[in-house]
Amino acid sequence: MKISIAQLNYHVGNFARNAELICNAVKKARQEGSDLVVFSELSVTGYPPLDLLDHSDFVKKCAEAVENIAAECTGISAIVGVPVLNTNKEGKKLYNAALVLSEGKIVFTSKKALLPTYDIFDEYRYFEPEKSFHVFTLGSMKIGITICEDLWDEQPFENEFEKSRLYSVSPIEELVKLNTDFVINISASPFSYSRIETRNNIFIGKAKKYGRPVIDVNQTGANTELIFHGGSLVVNNAGEVVMQLPYFEECMVTFDTGMAFSKQLQALPPRPSDTELIYKALITGIRDYFGKMNFSKAVVGLSGGIDSAVVLSLAAKALGSENMKALLLPSRYSSDHSVTDAVRLAENLGVKYEIISIEKPFSAFEESLSPLFSGLPSDVTEENIQARVRAILLMAYSNKFGHILLNTSNKSEAAVGYGTLYGDMAGGLSVIGDVYKTDVYRLAEYINLEEEIIPRNIIDKAPSAELRPGQFDTDSLPEYGTLDKILHLYIEMQKPFSEIIRSGFDRTMVERVIRMINSNEYKRYQAPPILRISSKAFGAGRRMPLVAKYW
Amino acid sequence: MKISIAQLNYHVGNFARNAELICNAVKKARQEGSDLVVFSELSVTGYPPLDLLDHSDFVKKCAEAVENIAAECTGISAIVGVPVLNTNKEGKKLYNAALVLSEGKIVFTSKKALLPTYDIFDEYRYFEPEKSFHVFTLGSMKIGITICEDLWDEQPFENEFEKSRLYSVSPIEELVKLNTDFVINISASPFSYSRIETRNNIFIGKAKKYGRPVIDVNQTGANTELIFHGGSLVVNNAGEVVMQLPYFEECMVTFDTGMAFSKQLQALPPRPSDTELIYKALITGIRDYFGKMNFSKAVVGLSGGIDSAVVLSLAAKALGSENMKALLLPSRYSSDHSVTDAVRLAENLGVKYEIISIEKPFSAFEESLSPLFSGLPSDVTEENIQARVRAILLMAYSNKFGHILLNTSNKSEAAVGYGTLYGDMAGGLSVIGDVYKTDVYRLAEYINLEEEIIPRNIIDKAPSAELRPGQFDTDSLPEYGTLDKILHLYIEMQKPFSEIIRSGFDRTMVERVIRMINSNEYKRYQAPPILRISSKAFGAGRRMPLVAKYW
Repeated sequence: MKISIAQLNYHVGNFARNAELICNAVKKARQEGSDLVVFSELSVTGYPPLDLLDHSDFVKKCAEAVENIAAECTGISAIVGVPVLNTNKEGKKLYNAALVLSEGKIVFTSKKALLPTYDIFDEYRYFEPEKSFHVFTLGSMKIGITICEDLWDEQPFENEFEKSRLYSVSPIEELVKLNTDFVINISASPFSYSRIETRNNIFIGKAKKYGRPVIDVNQTGANTELIFHGGSLVVNNAGEVVMQLPYFEECMVTFDTGMAFSKQLQALPPRPSDTELIYKALITGIRDYFGKMNFSKAVVGLSGGIDSAVVLSLAAKALGSENMKALLLPSRYSSDHSVTDAVRLAENLGVKYEIISIEKPFSAFEESLSPLFSGLPSDVTEENIQARVRAILLMAYSNKFGHILLNTSNKSEAAVGYGTLYGDMAGGLSVIGDVYKTDVYRLAEYINLEEEIIPRNIIDKAPSAELRPGQFDTDSLPEYGTLDKILHLYIEMQKPFSEIIRSGFDRTMVERVIRMINSNEYKRYQAPPILRISSKAFGAGRRMPLVAKYW
Repeated sequence: MKISIAQLNYHVGNFARNAELICNAVKKARQEGSDLVVFSELSVTGYPPLDLLDHSDFVKKCAEAVENIAAECTGISAIVGVPVLNTNKEGKKLYNAALVLSEGKIVFTSKKALLPTYDIFDEYRYFEPEKSFHVFTLGSMKIGITICEDLWDEQPFENEFEKSRLYSVSPIEELVKLNTDFVINISASPFSYSRIETRNNIFIGKAKKYGRPVIDVNQTGANTELIFHGGSLVVNNAGEVVMQLPYFEECMVTFDTGMAFSKQLQALPPRPSDTELIYKALITGIRDYFGKMNFSKAVVGLSGGIDSAVVLSLAAKALGSENMKALLLPSRYSSDHSVTDAVRLAENLGVKYEIISIEKPFSAFEESLSPLFSGLPSDVTEENIQARVRAILLMAYSNKFGHILLNTSNKSEAAVGYGTLYGDMAGGLSVIGDVYKTDVYRLAEYINLEEEIIPRNIIDKAPSAELRPGQFDTDSLPEYGTLDKILHLYIEMQKPFSEIIRSGFDRTMVERVIRMINSNEYKRYQAPPILRISSKAFGAGRRMPLVAKYW
């Protein structure tokens, strides 16, 4: 039997585009003599459709798109992912389904049994879990069709408070009981640099445990925060990876199951470094945010620091230097090097820039507020005014010329609230809001691998917000090397205070850091969407109360 | 048997406060000769604890608090709501439980079976649904203990696309099979003005259908967006409401079940108007946001328009006029009446105010940007700059003096994107972000019921943002009377386009309005938390994708 894996980039709600992508791949697979072409989870709608699923119009369009795709499936079968109505009297109104289309019809339906409802996943909000299992027969083959989480009945966990068995059924076990020959898993697995192996090991483990080949079809591209890394896999019944599709690229591969399930078909690509994966993920995230929103141009405020340098470099790569604009917005506290370094960076990238001093609007605010503030010492208020004046200038540029403002806050800052709401926290998309400061440095080195794009001085100088004379980040924060480790333990690993201390950090420092994280939930509530590259990003995947006592 | 209903105001994560509230009520109930005092759902943690439930520290504190409360329960039993660990190998790590405490111990545990996972509810994110049912015996009485949604197995629905039976089990039916004498429902029902009757009818319907009295114990107060209206009920086995606790107030009542279940115990309070309920809800929401965050003072930007007038009036009532500050921030486009009306309002309320012209900072921006903008016509960019200059001034006041900025955007504006991100959309809390403009007028009339607080001219003048000469809201929006009806059909009722047209609205107008709603998801993503008073508020209860094609 010949099977094609179609690892494609879908756009939420864009039925015309998604159906066209799918139909083109069906045609190509047919030309390649394929019997079955497999698309990923919710390929018809894009993932995640969120509350669009509450609208009957939307669900109607799903059915129409499926009809169009089915009409294309002559002489070949296709598996697509799509929500279907639950026609039972009881339960949620939809199922998350995999449909087998053939000769213009839906010939088989498999519904998702395990519905992830944690982190960024809200599937039980929309879908009823399936409780019965069936195999699909194609020619002489019995195929078990599963959807993403269906193979995650044994969850890996990093934290002893988490449970491994979130569900009480194992879909693959049920399918093996029905003598399935192999298992297809269609998925929508959002990228997290720390979960690439974990994910592969799920498929390897299942194949080995049940002695059945597993074909995983993931998607690629990004929808707002979520970036899909692709990396679809074929694992044989000995648990050996015999094929792997590339990361962050659309790709279609056709193979013979007899061949594939017995031996490795191609040299497997080497596992890229975390930094390379993160770099590619962010490029994908920026590119698709703009492409799918029909935007082409972006503006970045360049401070001469490392964060904006990395964001500008990433965006120039993703969107083209000609579509970028950099604004340099120095103040009376800016050091000379902040402007010269920023200019050099823009020139290295071939990005046009403007320099606008914030002095005049800043003094105008000082003057307007002087009757109210007279006699009071300068404090964080004045620092925030500077950050906000910059945001007004950047947003004015954005409004006037249609450039989307890219936010340059990193995850370490966002965590401890080291940023100004409506100031440097502004923007349409946060590019590195899930990247810790120490990883921002790694990205900078990666960007500079072949030639020096980011001037060395930007990487080497001590981080400073330059909002008052002689200010450095370390005045009010621990060294980023230490800070980031504490943050990772608390945010990604969800370790309790006592365990973090036991990892060897100073009690007072840990207390202070956690207090800063908790007391800044209100700022993050109003932050832009953040490209997610870790297992726990700020945003929809981390829902903390604002009005709450934390300690 | 004597039962006490304790309708209290809990604070998320504030175990000391919640336990103290509960212990004091236990003491009082004991003094009143009560056999059983009932607290509401997740009373030990406050509702909703959200992802704090992922932290083992937090769950440990729940157990400690329960231990302390149990120690207080001598000579009386108490029902409290708290998360408990799921000790089974399979399933989510917690249950949403009701514990019966007596003589220092947990003597009975009832776990929630139906877990709402829609709108603002995410309970399956954290909890495993219970599948078995037991009754608790106290003296000669068999009591069925249910938790909120457990009685909502038949969901009311407003939209034919929604399903009535979201779940496949009816906990009350199971409990009646076990010969329960009456049913206690502990709840955390967030307020929605349109759901007060619906909610009461659930209890009335269940009591009547099964011939069993139902005691509902709701909570009151607010945690961030969610406001709890109280209104706890006792319904006899004929489905008659025999007792109802007040709305939006803490209250404890002790009654004899023999008496209560046979006849009406007290004259039932008249059903307040929607406007009165909304008014009280918002006051509660403001008061608790400040009280529970340890804030006391607020600042409002007064434009002379109705939105900021209503917000200032509500906040002055909730926090005290002496804790309020109004800033009047006129521009070159402000009409004379905008200042005089605002001054009169502040004086009526006894709120101190300052007048700061935005002219200087605004011209400074015009000047700074003139090299970039030279030759280009003035457009929405310059309007946004004005709104953002105001935000900087308000936030500067907030930063310098510790006043929290209250946001004054209404739901109609938020829906169609008629507002400036980082400008008038700024603030720590959105007071009327779930109130349509037409309801803002109703609130104004309600505020003026006894005396004219909001000057008549503020209510009567045509709405205008005053960001350019002669600008009125109706230049770019339909009349609010029409707009709000379309918005309600699309947002609360989730009606498809075709049905909205059939309700009698112009096709082009509906298309335009829906397009405006959809294309402004990105702005609402960065909006402050909004006090929720409807069945579908912007914020956590409505999760729409940003990067998506809607039509």
